[in-house]
Amino acid sequence: MNSIQFLPPRESVLNKRETIINDLGRLVPANCLLHEQRELVPFETDAFVSYRQMPLAVVLPENTEQVAAIMSYCYQNSVPVVPRGAGTSLCGGAIPQLDAIIIGLSKMNVVLDVDYPNRAAVVQAGVTNLRISEHVGPDGFFYAPDPSSQLACTIGGNIGMNSGGAHCLKYGVTTNNLLGVKMVLIDGTVIELGGKHLDAAGYDLLGLICGSEGQLGIVTEATVRLTAKPEGARPVLFGFETSEAAGACVSDIIASGIIPVAIEFMDKQAIEICEAFAGAGYPLDVGALLVIEVEGSDPEMDDMLTRIVDIAKRNSVKTVRESQTATEAALIWKGRKSAFGATGRIADYICMDGTVPLSKLPYVLSKTTEIIDRYGLRVANVFHAGDGNMHPLILFNANDPDDARRAEEAGNEILKLCVDVGGCLTGEHGVGIEKRDLMTHQFSEEELQQQMAVRSAFDAGWLLNPSKVFPLEGRSI
Amino acid sequence: MNSIQFLPPRESVLNKRETIINDLGRLVPANCLLHEQRELVPFETDAFVSYRQMPLAVVLPENTEQVAAIMSYCYQNSVPVVPRGAGTSLCGGAIPQLDAIIIGLSKMNVVLDVDYPNRAAVVQAGVTNLRISEHVGPDGFFYAPDPSSQLACTIGGNIGMNSGGAHCLKYGVTTNNLLGVKMVLIDGTVIELGGKHLDAAGYDLLGLICGSEGQLGIVTEATVRLTAKPEGARPVLFGFETSEAAGACVSDIIASGIIPVAIEFMDKQAIEICEAFAGAGYPLDVGALLVIEVEGSDPEMDDMLTRIVDIAKRNSVKTVRESQTATEAALIWKGRKSAFGATGRIADYICMDGTVPLSKLPYVLSKTTEIIDRYGLRVANVFHAGDGNMHPLILFNANDPDDARRAEEAGNEILKLCVDVGGCLTGEHGVGIEKRDLMTHQFSEEELQQQMAVRSAFDAGWLLNPSKVFPLEGRSI
Repeated sequence: MNSIQFLPPRESVLNKRETIINDLGRLVPANCLLHEQRELVPFETDAFVSYRQMPLAVVLPENTEQVAAIMSYCYQNSVPVVPRGAGTSLCGGAIPQLDAIIIGLSKMNVVLDVDYPNRAAVVQAGVTNLRISEHVGPDGFFYAPDPSSQLACTIGGNIGMNSGGAHCLKYGVTTNNLLGVKMVLIDGTVIELGGKHLDAAGYDLLGLICGSEGQLGIVTEATVRLTAKPEGARPVLFGFETSEAAGACVSDIIASGIIPVAIEFMDKQAIEICEAFAGAGYPLDVGALLVIEVEGSDPEMDDMLTRIVDIAKRNSVKTVRESQTATEAALIWKGRKSAFGATGRIADYICMDGTVPLSKLPYVLSKTTEIIDRYGLRVANVFHAGDGNMHPLILFNANDPDDARRAEEAGNEILKLCVDVGGCLTGEHGVGIEKRDLMTHQFSEEELQQQMAVRSAFDAGWLLNPSKVFPLEGRSI
Repeated sequence: MNSIQFLPPRESVLNKRETIINDLGRLVPANCLLHEQRELVPFETDAFVSYRQMPLAVVLPENTEQVAAIMSYCYQNSVPVVPRGAGTSLCGGAIPQLDAIIIGLSKMNVVLDVDYPNRAAVVQAGVTNLRISEHVGPDGFFYAPDPSSQLACTIGGNIGMNSGGAHCLKYGVTTNNLLGVKMVLIDGTVIELGGKHLDAAGYDLLGLICGSEGQLGIVTEATVRLTAKPEGARPVLFGFETSEAAGACVSDIIASGIIPVAIEFMDKQAIEICEAFAGAGYPLDVGALLVIEVEGSDPEMDDMLTRIVDIAKRNSVKTVRESQTATEAALIWKGRKSAFGATGRIADYICMDGTVPLSKLPYVLSKTTEIIDRYGLRVANVFHAGDGNMHPLILFNANDPDDARRAEEAGNEILKLCVDVGGCLTGEHGVGIEKRDLMTHQFSEEELQQQMAVRSAFDAGWLLNPSKVFPLEGRSI
């Protein structure tokens, strides 16, 4: 695959490489600066492994003051900066460029404060998503957004991409669970947005920062909402003959006003891949599976399940299987959450992330099959159906350039379809470099210019993560 | 009261008044343009009645195209524009200025589309908040944010101020229930943000627009989230000896992880005022009252109430009274929702809107009393306690300039206190002209400059609602 171009590197920066490295060495301790070739290799790509580039250097600051000093230096010397959390981005959001330094937040991994009366935790940006829930779990709380990569991905990266997860149907995505940030602007200024209180005076810059893919500043600390664990939770498997029937069932559940905690969808291909990996007890004689989780007290769960089963029956459900033990429940989730890893065992894949209005789910599923068939490829569909957030995994052989090209073209066609039915290019993975050139399909010229003007209001020189989000053509700078 | 200044009007605009009115007359039908003195008087203020100014003219467009034509004209002729919904702003957000035309959205009041499978409604910006719930109510749905002014206020105004309401503890404020907008930029460009799908590619401009007080563009259509009505709902009255005890109880409920639909707080003064007006059956022998509403099935409500009553007992609750009938429940809410109107019957008042971390509630309540006593005034506290969103109503005599000055000074002191304990100047009413000059207490110079840069990225000439939100001194233009 090579259809995506990087910006040409700034010669002025490449020529000063030694000076820049020496200068950075004065801003951070020696163990916080990586510049040898062998040290840089782990940073040349992220989870969007089709593309890779080396950075000029990597800095791993230990605190906000060091981030500010580095940013101020880069600003004064016009050096591009690529922020990086754990490098789990599926859209290439953390892929560097030859003339850029990476600022990695991995050393800033301390939970600073837990405040139950205000249902909030303050953490450094390099803390992993799951670490927050582990930290407050013994006290009966958790941090709700749960990306599949939650063991590795950082809260800073979650904020950059406005990450979601299986349980976001009920609890919302990152932006709904973020209360405040400390952030360093490109010139080294440190600002704070939000706090432990509701709302903000002035514009909702906190909302704007969330999902801005590291282009408006670098978040170094986050204040996040904690949620009380439910009394109980029960995932239930619903098997259907066809994907269309499962899709129609999802649409009917949401239209009835019921909001389970999660509605996850798997087609036949995904069921087989996940079952082979996790032994989760998924039925293998169905064409599509919904994992629907309800939570609360036993009577609440019984009541909600009764209503959901009624709707499923009206959509010709074939199998309904409740988890009987905590172990069974954990296995069901293990199967679902390992879908990407399990797929990686059997083929190369690219993971799409389109979002559609729920009523369009059955139509988009059948059109996706049609598109994939036309390109002679295979697809596994496994996604957050309750949110309309689709994740077709397109399987291909990375050693065959033609196969790779077709996979990318088919993916683009599917994303355009999502937009055409009133949906959106992305649900929770971001735009990055992957979907940069499709932005013109989603937005008008005026709309893109307005977004770029907002970006310029934070970073007039476009130094922060410059290759991402916007098409290279038609940029306002 | 006259401590707040308006921007000096642009002589160049005032001198062209006749021409501008003639030109506008060519853009809209005759019945959509008001310019006679007697026609303009109803628009000289909003619900922040302490201040008033006449506009140059008022235009009441009938559709997005007319809004675009008017905006384009104003842009080309440097005429300031003040957008207006129903004029219920409590912070002067809709107060005009001498050189500005008001664009009022009252004629754009059609519910365009209701789409249950996608749980969404598309409405014109001049539709009132309550109208949406009335429209979808027979089908078992409602629109969740419920400002006290919901009978009158428009969805466009709600978006401008990111309005909340009593039931936002569970359902979130406007920004959590807004899916998309059609919006006219200052140069007349029409853009669309969001839609019926989750999330957005690119920056979260929709989140930025929500709460931007009409300074980034004029919203003409909104796509809002519909929510299924709960099976049942039950407001319960909890009476306490002191405000501090009630405040501590709120903090303990939230710390336990329980999220009722609403936790409303009234102090003795507010209880007496509301009871005299509504005959809601509030206990008069207590120092403070919480109205806590739970919802769901009967067993769910019973279970949640048991846990809340336990917490209340640990905070020495004096009275617990459940509503026994739907009529009683409606009366309880009528009392609470009429608090502002009922207060207006007995005195002039200004309504503060600070937000504090919940753990600071008891402290801020007792300091508020101290401040009010020091100024020799009276206060009624009635507010969304579960959100930490305080509404001290400071009572004064508008005919006594010294009384009015003291009320304003006391109010400013209370808002600064909210900021000093880690809170915020506003919860749901916005900044407007009321809190404009306090923004320097909340934000650093750098933070304000960054907000103004974002504003300039939408409206470089600062034509949209220019007197509001930012202090007049230190502006970037």
